[in-house]
Amino acid sequence: MTTQGNAANSAAGSGADPAPPQAPAPERDTAELEDRWLRAMAELENVRKRHDRELHRERTAERGRVASAWLPVLDNLELALGHASDDAFAEGVRATLDQAVEALARLGYPRHDATGVPFDPAVHEVVTVQDDPDAPANTVVRVLRPGYGDLRPAAVAVSRRRE
Amino acid sequence: MTTQGNAANSAAGSGADPAPPQAPAPERDTAELEDRWLRAMAELENVRKRHDRELHRERTAERGRVASAWLPVLDNLELALGHASDDAFAEGVRATLDQAVEALARLGYPRHDATGVPFDPAVHEVVTVQDDPDAPANTVVRVLRPGYGDLRPAAVAVSRRRE
Repeated sequence: MTTQGNAANSAAGSGADPAPPQAPAPERDTAELEDRWLRAMAELENVRKRHDRELHRERTAERGRVASAWLPVLDNLELALGHASDDAFAEGVRATLDQAVEALARLGYPRHDATGVPFDPAVHEVVTVQDDPDAPANTVVRVLRPGYGDLRPAAVAVSRRRE
Repeated sequence: MTTQGNAANSAAGSGADPAPPQAPAPERDTAELEDRWLRAMAELENVRKRHDRELHRERTAERGRVASAWLPVLDNLELALGHASDDAFAEGVRATLDQAVEALARLGYPRHDATGVPFDPAVHEVVTVQDDPDAPANTVVRVLRPGYGDLRPAAVAVSRRRE
């Protein structure tokens, strides 16, 4: 009852709160509003930055997801080519496989299938270690399954480290 | 000259203006700050909504971009299969092609290669119109190149519309 005269001053307050015994000084309101405004502007800036990062991350994730669906297709084409005779058909399939490998490379997933290179944990997964008197230690001596960029590492056999 | 007394009313005026004869009342400041805060909050809401839409659009665009790189590979595999004999190799390649077509369908790009269906401008592109006494008018009678979802329409021959 005694506070009724002050009710108009609580700009953002709910009607149910008991009104403060004294009306807030207008400078208080101003400082609080300026603070809210500044925080909203800062949040806006944060949201925009987060947005850019998220957009980049989602684009990369989607690219990887779709590109990954190629891998079993490429693996099977290579398997099939293992049984091929040397005719025009096999040549056509081989050219198409090369085209697919190039397409993946252009998307940012280059093929890793080289032997004779030093083992690199970033692109190789060791499936087996074997003695190879002709190869330097810790070298890729056989590729069991090629790798593609960061979609999957190449499965390789590596020469044994000498004691 | 006669309007100078009103300068204090231009709330958003530049600092270069001659100082208003009177300091703005604190209630003016409060109203302006509240307005700025509300606008910042509304902008924040807009930015978030725009963000969600943009994220969805970018994901879809990236998926289409990566999936499109498959199409020449699939086309060339089919071309090569046209020259194939009926051996285990051809069978393997055919199975791999089916696998690739399925992968595209799972990504949201189903293959369109049916004949005998009514022409549908959403999935077909008419390359030629031909007389076909056995087919109803405006029917796909031949598929020259299959289509995949909204990546590309099927290139088709359509039976002539009867007069």
